[in-house]
Amino acid sequence: MDKFFNANSVAVIGVSANDKKIGHTIFKNLLEGDYQGKVYPINPTIRKVLGQQVYPKITNIIEPIDLAIIAIPAKSVLNVIDECNEKKIKHIIIISSGFKEVGNKELENNLKEKLKQYGMKAIGPNCLGTFDAYTNLDTLFLPLEKMQRPKKGVISFISQSGALGAAMLDKASYMGFGFSKFISYGNGTILDETDYLQYLAKDRNTKVICIYLEGLTNGKRFLTVAKEITKKKPIIIIKGGITKEGSKATLSHTGSMAGEEHVYETAFKQTGIIQVKSLEELFLIAKMFEKAKIPKGKNVQIITNGGGYGILCTDAIIKNNLKLAKIKKTTYKKLQKLLPNITTIGNPIDLVGDADPKRYEQAITIVSKDKNIDILLLITLFQTPSLNNKIVDVIKKTYKTKTVVVVATGGKETQELKLQLEKNKIPCFDYPEQAVNALQKLTNYFL
Amino acid sequence: MDKFFNANSVAVIGVSANDKKIGHTIFKNLLEGDYQGKVYPINPTIRKVLGQQVYPKITNIIEPIDLAIIAIPAKSVLNVIDECNEKKIKHIIIISSGFKEVGNKELENNLKEKLKQYGMKAIGPNCLGTFDAYTNLDTLFLPLEKMQRPKKGVISFISQSGALGAAMLDKASYMGFGFSKFISYGNGTILDETDYLQYLAKDRNTKVICIYLEGLTNGKRFLTVAKEITKKKPIIIIKGGITKEGSKATLSHTGSMAGEEHVYETAFKQTGIIQVKSLEELFLIAKMFEKAKIPKGKNVQIITNGGGYGILCTDAIIKNNLKLAKIKKTTYKKLQKLLPNITTIGNPIDLVGDADPKRYEQAITIVSKDKNIDILLLITLFQTPSLNNKIVDVIKKTYKTKTVVVVATGGKETQELKLQLEKNKIPCFDYPEQAVNALQKLTNYFL
Repeated sequence: MDKFFNANSVAVIGVSANDKKIGHTIFKNLLEGDYQGKVYPINPTIRKVLGQQVYPKITNIIEPIDLAIIAIPAKSVLNVIDECNEKKIKHIIIISSGFKEVGNKELENNLKEKLKQYGMKAIGPNCLGTFDAYTNLDTLFLPLEKMQRPKKGVISFISQSGALGAAMLDKASYMGFGFSKFISYGNGTILDETDYLQYLAKDRNTKVICIYLEGLTNGKRFLTVAKEITKKKPIIIIKGGITKEGSKATLSHTGSMAGEEHVYETAFKQTGIIQVKSLEELFLIAKMFEKAKIPKGKNVQIITNGGGYGILCTDAIIKNNLKLAKIKKTTYKKLQKLLPNITTIGNPIDLVGDADPKRYEQAITIVSKDKNIDILLLITLFQTPSLNNKIVDVIKKTYKTKTVVVVATGGKETQELKLQLEKNKIPCFDYPEQAVNALQKLTNYFL
Repeated sequence: MDKFFNANSVAVIGVSANDKKIGHTIFKNLLEGDYQGKVYPINPTIRKVLGQQVYPKITNIIEPIDLAIIAIPAKSVLNVIDECNEKKIKHIIIISSGFKEVGNKELENNLKEKLKQYGMKAIGPNCLGTFDAYTNLDTLFLPLEKMQRPKKGVISFISQSGALGAAMLDKASYMGFGFSKFISYGNGTILDETDYLQYLAKDRNTKVICIYLEGLTNGKRFLTVAKEITKKKPIIIIKGGITKEGSKATLSHTGSMAGEEHVYETAFKQTGIIQVKSLEELFLIAKMFEKAKIPKGKNVQIITNGGGYGILCTDAIIKNNLKLAKIKKTTYKKLQKLLPNITTIGNPIDLVGDADPKRYEQAITIVSKDKNIDILLLITLFQTPSLNNKIVDVIKKTYKTKTVVVVATGGKETQELKLQLEKNKIPCFDYPEQAVNALQKLTNYFL
């Protein structure tokens, strides 16, 4: 399947001179983006596009083609597949819609048969395309100015829905997430979610696999494969169509039956899949797995400069079945010696409102050596006059010994400081409950 | 209580020449901010601060003083209260900490007795101060560059925790929320949460009351008062210390006992209070109440340009006990005539990936006239080439006839378009589940 992400040459079948058309956008992104391979535009009715010679048919190209992207009306797709076969292309991305999702089951079946007959691997039809942050092979039909592409990283995302995938990718890029591969697979005629899962399991750049799923082509196969993969890499799934009504809506979307909620829930749980309840949760948990150091245990120590946040974190830790760390007596004594009287030493450690980076450093340095603590949950409310961006260096040092997670709510300054922390692989969260929920998923997976 | 927010003259007792000190910041904010009243600095040891003459004692001021803000060490507070009494000041904000929250129960009791004896109204001690977005009377001790102040609006926020309040206010300002009043009341010695609640109930500018609460001074009184208020204005509460462990932590924070989770839950429910599970939820529900038109019923129609989002919204609507609207036959026929074949007419109405503002307008115009629909849940994924900011004008028009809520996930462009929509009082949400949860709270309150 590697040629979908690492092709040396790509043909875009259905290039248009009209820059509003899908075929135009795909060709433009490949031509003007950072993709290093050769790109060929195909269209029998135009001669030039973006200064490049257009080929009438794929068979007119002399050089070998690794990957064909098809963006033409559904009714013409089968003929083009024949031509691709003539050209000995084995990897095809079919962007075109108008198959089983609009009731054209026969056309879809014919497509399937043809692809099988030719031994072709195909993504789609009715999909958005793919993206690889390492090779920059970008077959998404969305313009760069409308959808930001993510930087290199460890998250890969498989999405049955194109628009949903695009929205998530745009937002994730905006938030600074790093990606390996993105796959929108639409109707999944030949290659389905399990195939992609197997591929990503072997992908060295992928550390976390996220999936938006409506239905399963072969549930048993998916679960068997997933069960093996979750032993090595976390799989996070959001399932669309968990209600009867939602499931009905999946039929006209990707033409799949979504099935019953509790059946999926139980099955996912048994295979070690992390099923999330919302798109937001998917983001936050992916971030935690992307950035956080693997925890050695479930004992969390809270250090805060705001009492209320300490309390909300405490509540969340208990509600999420994590443990409030109990610091050693020696730790307690050391802290008592250094910290001013107004602070509270316990769990939470409340450094109170006038805590500066130095006070954080004193507390963190001592606490980092305490083996009763596995995870440090740091609350750094940046609104106070004494806290400033020196806290970034203080926190960076701790990251080597413990799993560190930061909570901070606020405006511009807070966002900037969190960005700095996240560049240093320290996952930051806006709210206590988000951070602790993601921590729970992290510890449950590793411990 | 009005003088806390609408004083003609304010004295800051404990002004400092050191710009890192609380007294300095409060004075500076009042002097240099948009507050229109007179401000007097008090400190016996310095003569000038920020070019202003400093008075040694409050009794040295000849003009009348409406409000005194005390920011001096706890041990000297009682003496200063005597002087305030001499000056006939009845409204005092005590920022100073070092009372019952650190075990000084006697000092707290003495303070309480004195305030009672003099018939004074006092906020604090151990609090962050107050803010009024209409008068700009800003007694918060946080510098403007560290904590943004919100614009005028309809949300008021009572917070037992100062730092939590500050973080929330900073974030809310950053997100463009409009506020009326903010009150951080700390230990709540004389005036407690119920007093503030009663005051905000009468405040014309306040439409939504948000509260961060650790314990209740007088539970029965609070609930009796709240029950009356919720008939007129929604009260949204986040309760800190809902677990035994969290409750323990409240003792060293504001010195209050947080009490048992289910007792509070039941009581809040009975009084019509909306209790939220996370700080984020507090924000999102406050926004919904701040911006949304009051719904006439629970029938929600989804219109989307992304199938996956339509499905997730459908699931969320069912899970939240809202209703999927069933459009009239005439509506169906009109839509069928206008919309292209690739769209799906039902609930969701899927306008598919190439929907432009005009297609949205066609659908929205027809659907707006259908009385089977109370709420329009619009999904506008801006990543597609065909969607642009003309959609803002299309959505603005609908807002007059139905309750409209928008869901859009994405990067920079999405954020900007949502900002424009929110300026037009259309609440926007990042994710389907957030929008529907907030909708459920809105309909439950009004219907």
